[in-house]
Amino acid sequence: MKVIRSIAAMQRLSATWRRGGAPVGLVPTMGCLHDGHLALIHRARREVGSRGRVVVSLYVNPTQFGPGEDYGRYPRAWARDRRLCQEAGVDALFAPTDREMYPAGRDGFSTYVVEEALGRGMEGQSRPTHFRGVTTVVAKLFHITAPAVAVFGAKDYQQAAVVRRMIRDLNLPVRLVVGATLREPDGLAMSSRNGYLTPGQRRQAVALWNAIRTARREVRARGEMSSATLRRRLKLRIEAHPDARVDYIAFFQPRTLETLRRVRPGAHMALAVFVGSTRLIDNGRL
Amino acid sequence: MKVIRSIAAMQRLSATWRRGGAPVGLVPTMGCLHDGHLALIHRARREVGSRGRVVVSLYVNPTQFGPGEDYGRYPRAWARDRRLCQEAGVDALFAPTDREMYPAGRDGFSTYVVEEALGRGMEGQSRPTHFRGVTTVVAKLFHITAPAVAVFGAKDYQQAAVVRRMIRDLNLPVRLVVGATLREPDGLAMSSRNGYLTPGQRRQAVALWNAIRTARREVRARGEMSSATLRRRLKLRIEAHPDARVDYIAFFQPRTLETLRRVRPGAHMALAVFVGSTRLIDNGRL
Repeated sequence: MKVIRSIAAMQRLSATWRRGGAPVGLVPTMGCLHDGHLALIHRARREVGSRGRVVVSLYVNPTQFGPGEDYGRYPRAWARDRRLCQEAGVDALFAPTDREMYPAGRDGFSTYVVEEALGRGMEGQSRPTHFRGVTTVVAKLFHITAPAVAVFGAKDYQQAAVVRRMIRDLNLPVRLVVGATLREPDGLAMSSRNGYLTPGQRRQAVALWNAIRTARREVRARGEMSSATLRRRLKLRIEAHPDARVDYIAFFQPRTLETLRRVRPGAHMALAVFVGSTRLIDNGRL
Repeated sequence: MKVIRSIAAMQRLSATWRRGGAPVGLVPTMGCLHDGHLALIHRARREVGSRGRVVVSLYVNPTQFGPGEDYGRYPRAWARDRRLCQEAGVDALFAPTDREMYPAGRDGFSTYVVEEALGRGMEGQSRPTHFRGVTTVVAKLFHITAPAVAVFGAKDYQQAAVVRRMIRDLNLPVRLVVGATLREPDGLAMSSRNGYLTPGQRRQAVALWNAIRTARREVRARGEMSSATLRRRLKLRIEAHPDARVDYIAFFQPRTLETLRRVRPGAHMALAVFVGSTRLIDNGRL
């Protein structure tokens, strides 16, 4: 496995692979890899085949964090990540520096990719500059690694929708694949941020998954219900946990992300919940 | 020469060329081609060589026109443009429809590329949504035609600077080449918009080039002068023409586009002037 720090070196390598007819599968990560990431890496390998090349990018992207968010303390585990990628059969681990990615100073970085429809609600409302950071860094990673396929995780449902829209609108020659969310035995979606939780908070964090299961059960039992009623009930159940505070609970059409006033089976639900000071998200089809 | 209307067909063709090792040179145009465009096409050919491929895109891009601008009446000359491209040895003329480029309706287009430093002043100040339209469509054209080299005209000096910054910031694997401005015998920069001018206005339109030459002479004679003084003098000379009204006259550092309060030889000057209702631009090194 090659470990690559420089954008130019990564572009040369991906150009060489491309000329040799080897499709690239990219898995963009912020590191601190868990089994969910490894599943995405294996998925990328299946997508590009044994003569394809799998690239994992490892970059804690500052532009997708808002002021006061956890950029500074986002977990880093370089040696372990590197070993896990090696063991997973990754061909190149691309881990650029901030200085390479975002030129600073007088002639500093000034170009962004913005998606203005699907990224407005939910995460975009709670984290106003988040998706602009995501679309910008993903566009950069696409230009640097020239992937035929990019694999994203389903836990960030809205992110995948925003990236899919960006790919369509900007005609990026990349196929988006979304890999299923991996869960802990109690149902908590795997996330690098779960490591922030104290043991007591960790037990309460299952509230997100339980809320999705409750919603699914209720909606399937009734066939249809008001989103306001359902949201109220779920919020009560979640906030029965002493350290849990709901940021949002959203019900929407799965493709357009259009907010639904009446929820029926097949609708999608997403939620963000603070457990202590840790913000967790999850989503599922109802 | 292939004439291509569909994005997917253009992407397939450029992918085939790329796999065959033939570099693509792209010349983005809005059609109504004049000798300036043809010089850019010949430049693209020189850049990619005889085994390379030259693509001309012909698309009057709605997103770079503001409300009340000349989008609706921008000159179209399809048959002539096609013949000129054919004669100039163009390999593919890419002329997509609006519907292909900007999906409309509920799931309509929602992703833009924005450059927030170099595009603020001058054209960006007079035409607030202009560069966002330019960077967006140029990013799309890059993704569609996969050029190794893109050739832009020097008349749109700020546009070239903004596109160069976008290429750097988003790590687009494209080399930017800027071809010199071609001029009519009296010095007027060639532009598809010159066709809007009445014969009387056409005679006055040389005021832009004369202003650049005057500025160059004055600055070289004095070694340095205040930009306010120089601007005032040039404005008076330009507006001595009965149909000419200055939009802006700017003096700036040629690479960073930083505004200069003192103008010295080597500074760059750009200006926009309405002649009747036609807005013309030009620029030059002092």
